[in-house]
Formats: sequence, C-alpha cells, structure tokens
Amino acid sequence: MAHYHLHPDRFFDPDPEIRKYAREIYETITSLPIVSPHGHVDPKIFAENRPFPNPTQLFITPDHYLFRMLYSQGIPMESLGIPTVDGSQVETDPKKIWRIFAEHYYLFNGTPTGVWLDYEFNVVFGLKEKPDGGNALKNYDELNEKLGSPEFLPRTLYKRFNIEVMSTTDAAADTLEHHRSIRESGWDGRIIPCFRPDTVTDISTKNWAGNIARLGELTGSAVDSFAGYIGALEDRRRFFQRMGATSTDHGVFAPYTHELTEKEADALFRKALQGKATPEDARVFTAHMLMEMARMSTNDGMVMQIHPGSCRNHNPALFDRFGLDKGHDIPVLAEFTLNMRELLNRYGNDPRLTVIVFTLDEATYSRELAPLAGHYPALKLGPAWWFNDSIRGITHYRESTTETAGFYNTVGFNDDTRAFVSIPARHDVSRRMDANYLGGLVARHIITTDEALTIAKNLTYHLVKEAYKL
Amino acid sequence: MAHYHLHPDRFFDPDPEIRKYAREIYETITSLPIVSPHGHVDPKIFAENRPFPNPTQLFITPDHYLFRMLYSQGIPMESLGIPTVDGSQVETDPKKIWRIFAEHYYLFNGTPTGVWLDYEFNVVFGLKEKPDGGNALKNYDELNEKLGSPEFLPRTLYKRFNIEVMSTTDAAADTLEHHRSIRESGWDGRIIPCFRPDTVTDISTKNWAGNIARLGELTGSAVDSFAGYIGALEDRRRFFQRMGATSTDHGVFAPYTHELTEKEADALFRKALQGKATPEDARVFTAHMLMEMARMSTNDGMVMQIHPGSCRNHNPALFDRFGLDKGHDIPVLAEFTLNMRELLNRYGNDPRLTVIVFTLDEATYSRELAPLAGHYPALKLGPAWWFNDSIRGITHYRESTTETAGFYNTVGFNDDTRAFVSIPARHDVSRRMDANYLGGLVARHIITTDEALTIAKNLTYHLVKEAYKL
Amino acid sequence: MAHYHLHPDRFFDPDPEIRKYAREIYETITSLPIVSPHGHVDPKIFAENRPFPNPTQLFITPDHYLFRMLYSQGIPMESLGIPTVDGSQVETDPKKIWRIFAEHYYLFNGTPTGVWLDYEFNVVFGLKEKPDGGNALKNYDELNEKLGSPEFLPRTLYKRFNIEVMSTTDAAADTLEHHRSIRESGWDGRIIPCFRPDTVTDISTKNWAGNIARLGELTGSAVDSFAGYIGALEDRRRFFQRMGATSTDHGVFAPYTHELTEKEADALFRKALQGKATPEDARVFTAHMLMEMARMSTNDGMVMQIHPGSCRNHNPALFDRFGLDKGHDIPVLAEFTLNMRELLNRYGNDPRLTVIVFTLDEATYSRELAPLAGHYPALKLGPAWWFNDSIRGITHYRESTTETAGFYNTVGFNDDTRAFVSIPARHDVSRRMDANYLGGLVARHIITTDEALTIAKNLTYHLVKEAYKL
Repeated sequence: MAHYHLHPDRFFDPDPEIRKYAREIYETITSLPIVSPHGHVDPKIFAENRPFPNPTQLFITPDHYLFRMLYSQGIPMESLGIPTVDGSQVETDPKKIWRIFAEHYYLFNGTPTGVWLDYEFNVVFGLKEKPDGGNALKNYDELNEKLGSPEFLPRTLYKRFNIEVMSTTDAAADTLEHHRSIRESGWDGRIIPCFRPDTVTDISTKNWAGNIARLGELTGSAVDSFAGYIGALEDRRRFFQRMGATSTDHGVFAPYTHELTEKEADALFRKALQGKATPEDARVFTAHMLMEMARMSTNDGMVMQIHPGSCRNHNPALFDRFGLDKGHDIPVLAEFTLNMRELLNRYGNDPRLTVIVFTLDEATYSRELAPLAGHYPALKLGPAWWFNDSIRGITHYRESTTETAGFYNTVGFNDDTRAFVSIPARHDVSRRMDANYLGGLVARHIITTDEALTIAKNLTYHLVKEAYKL
Repeated sequence: MAHYHLHPDRFFDPDPEIRKYAREIYETITSLPIVSPHGHVDPKIFAENRPFPNPTQLFITPDHYLFRMLYSQGIPMESLGIPTVDGSQVETDPKKIWRIFAEHYYLFNGTPTGVWLDYEFNVVFGLKEKPDGGNALKNYDELNEKLGSPEFLPRTLYKRFNIEVMSTTDAAADTLEHHRSIRESGWDGRIIPCFRPDTVTDISTKNWAGNIARLGELTGSAVDSFAGYIGALEDRRRFFQRMGATSTDHGVFAPYTHELTEKEADALFRKALQGKATPEDARVFTAHMLMEMARMSTNDGMVMQIHPGSCRNHNPALFDRFGLDKGHDIPVLAEFTLNMRELLNRYGNDPRLTVIVFTLDEATYSRELAPLAGHYPALKLGPAWWFNDSIRGITHYRESTTETAGFYNTVGFNDDTRAFVSIPARHDVSRRMDANYLGGLVARHIITTDEALTIAKNLTYHLVKEAYKL
Repeated sequence: MAHYHLHPDRFFDPDPEIRKYAREIYETITSLPIVSPHGHVDPKIFAENRPFPNPTQLFITPDHYLFRMLYSQGIPMESLGIPTVDGSQVETDPKKIWRIFAEHYYLFNGTPTGVWLDYEFNVVFGLKEKPDGGNALKNYDELNEKLGSPEFLPRTLYKRFNIEVMSTTDAAADTLEHHRSIRESGWDGRIIPCFRPDTVTDISTKNWAGNIARLGELTGSAVDSFAGYIGALEDRRRFFQRMGATSTDHGVFAPYTHELTEKEADALFRKALQGKATPEDARVFTAHMLMEMARMSTNDGMVMQIHPGSCRNHNPALFDRFGLDKGHDIPVLAEFTLNMRELLNRYGNDPRLTVIVFTLDEATYSRELAPLAGHYPALKLGPAWWFNDSIRGITHYRESTTETAGFYNTVGFNDDTRAFVSIPARHDVSRRMDANYLGGLVARHIITTDEALTIAKNLTYHLVKEAYKL
C-alpha cells in the first residue's frame, strides 16, 4: 500500500538550477485559466449536469488509454465492462471491474495515464492511497460517495478546474442540441462545438451515402451533386459558427492535399454515391476536400485543424466486437512536406487562414513541421498529440521544434480528451513540462528569466486564445 | 598509457539525485543471474570446453563490431586476420594483429564496443592498462597466459558469469550435435537452441533448393510440395523443442506479413524449387512464412522473434571476399503498423502466442512499436538491438517506449552476441542503464523508489524468463 | 530593455560536474583557428574589402534564417527590403526595416539565430542592449558607425575571427574572378572555391541547356555529347583545383546513385538538350552524375560532399516574387542505405576517395549514416546541417552517431553560412556543444578527461583539415 504524496516539484529536472527556475516559472502559470480548444468530452454531461454514475463508469469504461494497457496484458475487454456492438453480455459489476483495475495499477508506472490518474485520485478526489488490490473497495466506496455529492457535479467541477472555454468535437450532422441546451440554461460555462466533417468528407466511411442523405435533410440542400454537397457543408459551417464554433477538425490517414477540377470532384462524388468508389478514389477525394476546407476557412475564418497519421481500427476483431475508439488506432509514418505542398502553396501565404497541424510521428517535428511552420504564415504547430502528450513527449516536442519554429508558431496545449476529470491533470503536466523546458533554457543561459516568464504565459494562455480565436 | 579504474558509478547520470537512486537500484540487481534468451555464441565451445586459442582469435577476428570500426578507418580486413572465402592469404601472426588493434583502440572512445572491451579486459581478465601501442605486447602476453589457465575455460567462465540459461541461434537443418553433447556430458550449464529457419524460408537464399533437400533428408519428408515442406518445418520445430528450444527467430528485410492461399503458396514454392522465383516472389513468400510461423507458434507454444530492417551484405566486394556477418549489414527504414497488421489481426489477440519484435529504426519505437505493444496481447517489444544496444540506445529505448507501452510489454535484455566474453559486460551496461532510467523517474517523482526496485528486478530477471518461457 | 551579459558557461549543461568538464575542455579549443571548409560567403567582399553598407544590409536582407521567421509571423517580405525578381518596389529605408526586426527580436528566443545574433551584436560589435523596439535606432546608429571604421572591414574581421581557411561554394561555370583577385592582391587570407556543378548536372534546372552552352564556351569543349560534357566537367574541376579547391558539393533531392551505360547516359543527355527530359529522366541522370562525380573524385582527389533531402523552393509564390534561397526550402524524408548503395559498392572501399554526407533528417543518423560511416572507408559524416546546426541539433548529432561511428568518422564543423559575421558565433556554438557532449561522457565515466581533450582538438581542428585536405 502506498500513500499519495504528489511532490510539488514532480516531473521537473532534478538538477537544482533547472528545478529552481522551473518552479519559479510554473508558479506564475499554475493558476491561469484552462483554455481547452480541442477535446472529446461529451457536452451532454454539462447539459444534464447529473452526478457521474460510479467510479468505474467515470474512469475506466470510457478511457481507451486505460483499458488498452490492461488488454495488452491479457485482460479481456469484457471483464472491464466495455460494451459490445451486438449487446452481448459483459461484466456489469462496477466493483469487480474496479478491483481488476486496481490490481493492475502498477502497469501504469512511468506512463502519463498513471500520472493523470494519480492527480485525479489524489488532487481532485482526495484519495489517500494509490490503487492496489488491497484498497480497491475502500477507494471505490470513497470515490462513489463523493460522486454523489454536489461538489462533484460536472458544472461544479468545470468551475473548480478553472476552465475558461472548452471545445467539443462534433460531426457535421450533429444537431448540437446539448450545446444549445447549455446556452439556454443560462449557465455561464463556455462549451463550444468544433466542426469535424470526416464522416461526410471521407467517402470510404461506412454508410457514407446515408450520412450525405442526412446532411441533405438537415440543410435542405440537394446533395446529389458535388456543388450541392459543398453548399450543404458551407451551410453546416455557418450553423456551427452561430453555435460558437471557431474551428474545424480533420482526421485523415495522410495529410495529402490535391485540388481536383470541379468536374473531377463531381464525378468522384457521384461514383461514391453509387457505392463504387475505390480506396484510391477515397484518397484523392479526401485530398481535394482538405483543399475545399482550406478554401472555406480562408473565407469564413474558422481555424482548420488536421490530425493525420493514425491507422484507425487496426484490429478488426476488436472493432467488430467493441467498435470505434477502443485503443487500437495505431500511428503510421507521416509525411507533410510533399503532401501539404499544394494546400500551402494555394492558401499558406494568406493571412486570413490558420491551419494547425498535429503529428504522431515525432521524426516529423524537426524534419518537416518546424521548418514548414517557421516559414508559412498560415501554418501553426499543434502541441504533442495523443501518445506523445506525456512528460517526455511534451519535452521532446519543444526540444525538436523550438530551434526552427520558435515558440510563437505553436498554439499552446490541447488536452484532446474524452475523460473530463483528466483535464486539469493534463494541463498541469503540460504547464510543468513547459516550465521545465524554459527553466532548462534559463539554466543554460539561452534565454533570461524574464523572457522565460513571458513565454510561459504565452504558451499557457495567450497563444491558444489567439490561434483558436477564443 | 592509461591505467584502468572502472568507476562504480559509470554511465549513471552525474546529477547527484539521479545517481544516488540509480546506484541504489543497480545494487539490487547487479548479482541477479544472467538470462540470455537470444545470442550467437557457438555452442561448440561449451561442448569441447577447450582453452580459447589466443587473445586475437578470442577478441578480434570473430567480432564484427570491432573490425568494422577499424576497417572504416582504412585498416584492411586482411591485416586483421579475417579469413577469406577463397582461403587466400591473410595476416596470421596474432601479435601483429593485436598491435594494430591496440594502436587504434582510441577509435572506440565513446562507443559501446569500447565500454564492453574495457569491462572484459579489466574486470574479466584483470588487465591494468587500457590498450595502446605501448602496452600491446604486454597486454597480449598477460591475456594469453590467462587463457591457458583453467579459470578461463568456457564452462568455468559461464559459471563465473552467473549465467542461468543461454540460447544459441541455429539453422533449421542444424543437427544440434553440440547441444546434445553438452547435455550428455552431464555439465549442468543450460545451453539451449533457437529455431532460425531463414535459410529455408527465404527463397532468395543462395542454394535454397539445396537447403530444402537437406531438410527433406533430415526429416524424411517429401519436400517437393508446400505441404510437405510445412510438415518438415513442423518436424524440425518438434526436434528443437525436444532439445530445449523455447523460441524461434526470423531475420527479414521487412516485417511484411500476408497470408496466401494454400494453392498460391504451393505454386510459389514449386516455382522457387525450379530456381525461377523473382525478388517479389521472395518478398511475398517470406510474408506468408511469417504467417505460417505465427500459426505454428500459436500451436506449439514457441516464442516467435522477428528481427527485421537490416540490409544484409550491403557491400558485395566484402561479402565476396570475406562472407556473411562482416560488419556490412546496414539498417533501413522500418514499418510495422501496416506490415504486421495481417499477422496481428489473425494471431495478435491469441493468448497462446508471444511475438517479440526488434527494430534498428529508433523512429519506430514511439511511432509504431510502443502503440502496438500497448494494445495487442501477443506482441512484446524486444530490447534495444545491435547498433542501439548501447548506453544511449538503451536509455533512448526506455524513454521512447515506456510512456505508451509501459514496462510490462517489454522482455528484458538480449545480449545477441557472438562474443561470449562480452556477455557480462553487455548485461552490466543494460542493468546500469535501466537503473539509471528508473533512478531518473524516481528523482522526477514519477515513480517511487519501491516501484523502481520492483520494476528493476522484473526488467533484469523475471520478464525475460516469462516472455521466453525459461 | 535587456542588457547583454553573455554568460561564460552558456549552453553548457547546468549539472556542476558536466559544466566543470565542459568548461575545461572548451577552454583548450576556444582559441584554435577557424577552419571553414564549406560555406556561402560571397568572395567579392574580400576581393573588394569595402565597408559593409549598413546594419540592415549586413544582417537582415541576406539572411534567410532571419527573415523566414519574421515572414512566418505575418511580416511581409517587402517590408523587410527583400529584393523582388521583377524589381518592383520594396521597403528601402534601412532604419524602418531595422525597427521591424528589433520589435520582433523576441521571436528568436530559444533559436540558434537568436544565439548567433546575440554573439554578433555583443561580442563582435560591442552592443550593450539586446534589440527591442525601444533601442532600435540607438543600436542601428552604433552598428552603422562601426561599420564605417577600418576595424570592421571584411579582411580585418577575417583576421580578427582567426580564420585559417574558408571555402566558398561556386557554380561550375563561375570564373572565380574574385578568388583570383584575392590571390593577386597579395593578401594572405586563404579563400578557396568549391566546385558545385548542380546547375549543369541537374537536367531539370531552369535554362539547363544555356548552362551547358556556357560550359562549352568556357572550356572550349564540344558539349553536344555526353562524352564532351564529361570532358568539360573534368576540365572545370582541374581549373577549380588550380584555384585552390579541394572539394566538390552536390545538392540533390535524394542521394540516389545509379550507373547508366555510356549509351544510356548519352541518350538522356541529348534528350535533355532538346528540352524533352521528364522528371524521372532528371532523377536517373542525377543518380548517374553522382557516380561520375565519385569516379572523378577517386581520380583527382577532390573531396565529394553530398547535401541531399531538401525540397527546394517549396513555395512557388515566394519563389516567383523573390527567387532562390528565401527560406522556403523544406526537408523531406531521407534514405541513404539503398540510395547510396551503388556508389558505395563501386567506390566506397577505395582509399583514394572521401565522400562527406549531410542530412536534414535526424532519423537517419543512428539508423543509416552512423552504420554506413562506421563501415565504409570512403564515407564520412558531415556535421549537423542547417536546421540542425543548433544547440540541441549538434548535441543530438553527437548522441546519435558516436556510439556506432565513433568520433573519427566525422569531419568537424561546417558553418555553411551566407552571413560572414556569424561565422565566429557558429563555430563558438559548435565548440561549446562538442565540449559539453565530451564533458558529459567524462562525467559519466565513459571516457577520461585526457581522452576528451584529445578528441576535442580533433573535432575542432584536425579532423576537418584532414577530411577536406586543407
């Protein structure tokens, strides 16, 4: 059994000089509001503001970071209560699931998941002991009790976490009913949508034609031609903007961009509607749609995010049984210089556009992304993403991008999470690692303390607000 | 002339906190037995247990790590006594060769080869002076004298090195006579074989048809069809298992996996027997054979190792004159996510299978391998390999994989060496670097000292025994 | 307003042990002469030895490192006085330009450009205050006054910088008139040319046929056949050698090497003269020309440099308006093992040849370049290049190459700059980072202090002179 005592200097370099500067810098940013410009929290929880059902359903079942590690060590997904697509039976006893989790908590040693959970358990919920087999039930009961109290309602936590604004991520055909109901409730939390049209722009999506039909219904557009389809998308963007959105997001296998003629695009669109599109058609159509999205963003001012390089649903057996986002999306080699050339040539010099690019392939930081962001006015670098959103990952990101792109071509931090309670934990790690990186530069006499303090505030607060127009 | 004084804190971070923890952790693992699950030591030396002939033939002529560096600086291979394929004359005076080596020992400054040799010379053999031109003969004579004494016989060193088990690597058609004679000798050292069928599974191998014929002879199988060939391979696996093997090993250019139909496989096999296979045929056949090997491992329980990404025999002039494994195998860009997808989809969720993957392309650690190993139950990460089995390489491996795969999806250390005397040196470096990495996590308050001590024992001893079923 | 105080320990690791050794090592190399074997300074400045016109034209308008960062933040190139191709109007007031630069100087925090400029302003020119909006004019005036004094004439600075030899980079058809006039002036500075034939060896070059015609005129050769063209190139190499050149340089998209038959090469050459060459023709012709250049270097002894992996002129809008070398060359993924195999197989074992290879793709250091350089006698690694010529980049280069290639397969430092005044700043950073890397090895007990001191002198002075035959 281990008692929690989260060290105030945790994650900082142990060198006394670096640590001293890191601490000094961190203290000036730790209380700044959280700006969360990109994430996947369900807006429904703020619309309804009901208590979270129990610790297992809050922490374990929705978090693929967590159950992927347990699964990798041979623990069946069913035993963790992950719901199946066909509704077949899985474990339903939240305490049994919690015990399995607690017994294997040591697997998270040295991982960001472990670090975030420690923060959530100890700082947010006041647990005194790190989970293990012995304290599983005690911890569970203590968490469960707190979840029932008003202090742990979603809106209360939002305020306690000092969140200034939070963006969700929403399909093009989403009605944004929860966003609407939050607005109408009079609550002053700012939860805004983000326009993510992947399921209507990627013609290889399952039931793509159905999604297009739905798009037509929602917008009243005739979506039987490429022009009609584009009109419908522009209509949805306007709707999202009215609902507070300032950004779009595009998850693509590769960031390949290529402009088709109107005629070519229309032909591909009609072929896809007939269910005849090939994988190569899908690749080219997506490349053209990135061009279209850049064009629209240049006109309507929505910030364009690109999240490329993930082979989604790598494990079909798991996908068939448990569905999307179950921890089996795996990164692939990424290429930006040639793939994004056409988009950047066409729109990258335009001061009206902001494109924020992310990567899962750390080799692209110094090779391609920092050189591109250090040149094109429209291009900015998103923070260390997903598997790289970690103590080492964030540091490596700064080390690999700063010398070529500087600090001001980056856009602060994204928590990018489905796990609402992890938001303060994730921002805290980011702030600590930025402070530590800056402290290292001061200790090496590369920048002054004053410069570091200014940069730290920008990295934590100002750059994200400016880049995302928040 | 430099006197040896190997510092007890060598290779540790000089930061006093990290060093303190690293030392504390290292002390708890330094005396654990060596488990060597993968390597290339010739079992004959233990079967015969004769004195090593002389220092030059022990240290220089068999070690491509060593003579590749000398060759890169313009020293002819002939002058180092490397035997030629055609038997043409090379230097035979071991003292002359030793002198060249000693005069150029400074080339190994900052390299793992230098670090291992320092350990071997000073710790294993008690030399007092680092090799240089001045002490060449003195060192040579001192080593030579020791080699003649019973304390330096192979079996005695095996015990002194505290080796618990050591795996060799053996061709599918190997008779394993030395393994048999070791067993029959009554000596209690545990030297086991590993089934490496590359020369019968890669149809582009020189004299492949001859290798297949030999396989037929050994097993009494009719190897004129794919089915017969598969039967012969299964037979050899059973033989290796009876001789103590727990693992197989597969050296492939790319880890591409793809299942052919029985008919396609048979057609390719027959085409290859006729000497008509193209390079593309070889690529596809190898992809299918990885699937076959995974299928067999799922059934017979042998752990499957994949060592991909080396362009073997890059320098044909050297290959023609000196043959295989002469320091001119060069890594290439590696890709696992797409290449291994078919194998992992088919077998990666099966709890009966363990696949251990290695890489020479460090960019794949965080991009592909840690995400894959942090998801698929069957997949485990082999340690930093070959050019990356080094002070920085091991640290970089832990830094790049731990946050996503954790510690428990890795399998401890492999020395992977042909140089028997380097085994304790290599394991010592690995233990030091793991201790140092863990010490860094403790000093940064990421894990506790207790957690570090538990992990250290697992990394050094338990994980390798479990993963390799030893 | 920030006063300059460049710390004597700047850029060193703050760990007291590493810093102590780094300082000790650095002190032994800081006064060694600068050997600059590769760069882009205009030889005209030494031929004419006139005062630099003003601070803006010295520091800002010629330096793409600098204005690319300003451009990335939305500052128009025109406002920085970057001359246009068509001669259309740009800002001409140097003080206005200087003010924009000074107001945005904070963008260079944490970048090597910032570090170099601080050195140039403070150490070379004695400025007391870091540039900002407030001191823009004061600094400008102070710099401007100094530029008018004899102490800041090019030849005087050359001596003050303690430069022993400096190579420029010159087109194959360059008359080398400035090199000639420097020689004839009796001044004892050693400014030598380097043969860079890209515009005549890359058949996709704009106006390539015109360049070939010019080559024919200069050499009196019949350049209507491949044989005549090769003869003309050999002639130009002899001319460059007579003018002091010891090296050639080749900027290629990929380091692909492949030998054509004489007939194939001749056919491609003639096709290109007719303006009918395809991009694939250009790729293959360049691959053959690298083979030709290696052949010539093996014969005439000129050191062959290869700078691959940059997608030149990524931004055509900028290229059309401002031309070459305006900060929009962007790196691409690099591959050496397979691409350079043919060249290395043919010439890499030849002791007469030295090929020095550079990369912008840091993933190739440990994966390909160090293994290749640690084997082939002819191959040496150039230093960290361009975007990687930085505090972190140099350190990362040593960390990624030393364990496999050692120190002696590297060739010291290249400043590779167009900005003459930055030369001492760049060499100082390189010396500091090498001293720091070596200090780290000493502090970790990997090498001794004596070994570190010897290596440091080699890295700074001897290796570059030997590799480039200076």
